[in-house]
Amino acid sequence: MCVAIKDMHVRGAGLIGCAAAYGMYLAVAGTTGAESVEEVKARFVSAAEKLLLTRPTAVNLRVGVEKLQDVLNGELSKAEGTFSADVMEALEVAARREAARITDEDAEFCQRIGEAGAEILQEIYQRKKTRQSPSSCVNVLTHCNAGWLAFADWGSALSPVYAAFNQGLPIHVWVDETRPRNQGASLTAWELAKHGVKHSVIADNAGGHLMRTGMVDMVITGADRVTRNGDACNKIGTYLKALAAKDNDVPFYVALPSSTIDWRMTDGAEIPIEQRGDEEVKYAEGLCEDGKRRKVLLTPATSGAGNWAFDVTPARLVTGLITERGLSHPSEEGLLKTFPEQASTGL
Amino acid sequence: MCVAIKDMHVRGAGLIGCAAAYGMYLAVAGTTGAESVEEVKARFVSAAEKLLLTRPTAVNLRVGVEKLQDVLNGELSKAEGTFSADVMEALEVAARREAARITDEDAEFCQRIGEAGAEILQEIYQRKKTRQSPSSCVNVLTHCNAGWLAFADWGSALSPVYAAFNQGLPIHVWVDETRPRNQGASLTAWELAKHGVKHSVIADNAGGHLMRTGMVDMVITGADRVTRNGDACNKIGTYLKALAAKDNDVPFYVALPSSTIDWRMTDGAEIPIEQRGDEEVKYAEGLCEDGKRRKVLLTPATSGAGNWAFDVTPARLVTGLITERGLSHPSEEGLLKTFPEQASTGL
Repeated sequence: MCVAIKDMHVRGAGLIGCAAAYGMYLAVAGTTGAESVEEVKARFVSAAEKLLLTRPTAVNLRVGVEKLQDVLNGELSKAEGTFSADVMEALEVAARREAARITDEDAEFCQRIGEAGAEILQEIYQRKKTRQSPSSCVNVLTHCNAGWLAFADWGSALSPVYAAFNQGLPIHVWVDETRPRNQGASLTAWELAKHGVKHSVIADNAGGHLMRTGMVDMVITGADRVTRNGDACNKIGTYLKALAAKDNDVPFYVALPSSTIDWRMTDGAEIPIEQRGDEEVKYAEGLCEDGKRRKVLLTPATSGAGNWAFDVTPARLVTGLITERGLSHPSEEGLLKTFPEQASTGL
Repeated sequence: MCVAIKDMHVRGAGLIGCAAAYGMYLAVAGTTGAESVEEVKARFVSAAEKLLLTRPTAVNLRVGVEKLQDVLNGELSKAEGTFSADVMEALEVAARREAARITDEDAEFCQRIGEAGAEILQEIYQRKKTRQSPSSCVNVLTHCNAGWLAFADWGSALSPVYAAFNQGLPIHVWVDETRPRNQGASLTAWELAKHGVKHSVIADNAGGHLMRTGMVDMVITGADRVTRNGDACNKIGTYLKALAAKDNDVPFYVALPSSTIDWRMTDGAEIPIEQRGDEEVKYAEGLCEDGKRRKVLLTPATSGAGNWAFDVTPARLVTGLITERGLSHPSEEGLLKTFPEQASTGL
């Protein structure tokens, strides 16, 4: 599971949270040879450490691991130090149940994000319809992939798009290619095509021009971590789109389940930004005419590269945060109004 | 020459201006079968029309064509309607001379841009050296390719980099990949490597994060057309970098020879923005392991794309325009102070 997360066989804030939870379950399910409570505990502590090191930025991973640790510690304290096959089975059952619960919750929260976001899209459409031609459609720009390939189901940023589309809203999505790994060009475009949603892939460079010339009605992105003050860390390049949205009065929304909020961090500047290998920048991967997938080198072989995977969009550029409890203002006050039970968390 | 310009075998504002001028020369040199002044004139009028249609955005192309038309019309009026082999030869000689003059001027202007820009880089270095460690270097970010592959010589945006490097200034360049055609990853990185300048290729998405975290001291880009008010049209994505520079107090300079200024246009909104084929966005081209250049498909085969080649950076985001006459404020007043002879042009 560590390899799957680190090498991005699974990726997306929600999905790596679920995957990490199942990783903890696998660690417990794999402890058949354990001979004491201490040994079992050492195994899942070690699994937690390894999982936490796979990717630093998305907080869902930490949340998934910590929830599993809580459940496992709870089961162990029930056993009061005794060790038996029954204890092992109870641990395994509890871990699987919690991983499944986290995954189901992710799907449910994302569905609610879709419903809340679709309302915003409907409002934009109603304003546009009366102002412009009745045949107009809503143009949404999104960056990276925050759809059902990035979560247990539905996704965050794309969930409102699917919900609005299912309600019959005429919608078209500008899909940022999202270099260097091209999650937009490959994953988001593929998802939207499967769902039948009209879309156009664009270079990451294009969004500013589109916003300046009135071709974007709304930007929605996902997030890998949102801090108490509403700063949103997401795929590298998101900040540039937020700046362009602000400069052109285009609403900029970040969609996220509450598992993406890091209540312990006050400010986006604290978020660790993952750096990945140069080869992701120096190469692009795709399908050749002969049907084979190949990597092509885009730069001189000797040129160096830099590869920061995320950036932070300051709260002042965010119009609103779309959560499973509806729209939240991007500020500590706004977030605590939506999630009052978190008032004392991590402080 | 039309095919070479349209299909971008030659590209870059300066170089397509020179190429267009030589295209006019070729039209005259190729009129061996002409039998009257009218026929010769018709041929170069037709050549001018074809050349002007190849690419709409860079104004250097129009300037090159119009300068050749002026010279040819001048020669024809000297001939006072008579037609002879001598007249034909005079036309050919004058056309070649003017095309060469435009090309030499481009090289000379770009060299002066380098000198003016290097002064700014030296100032930044002096400030940084006293403030930070003495071993620090100046980090420049550039977008697309505006070096000696884009001009007759030196280039615009890269000319200050080369001049400062030749003066011994420690310098490192962040090279925006510049999708969809990757002029940064392929051309700028290659040029800098040839010149021995330290550089790192980055995804177009990365510049915002680099500026927010203090890793960029100055942004320099070229331009395809600058209007009277100082608005700068350049490769798609330039506007996004200018927004990030403004948001982080990073100086943002546009380097250009005066042939790139369109004195007839008051405002960047009037500039025609070229749209190119979807395939440039849907594919990336590079070198495979087996040493063959191949195109790889990055998107689902059925997905549509959008491909605007340029965007406009409003003058308010530009710190200064670096021209062959030195630094100019990005405004009509500033430009006319540098080029007072243009006060009445095009109005």
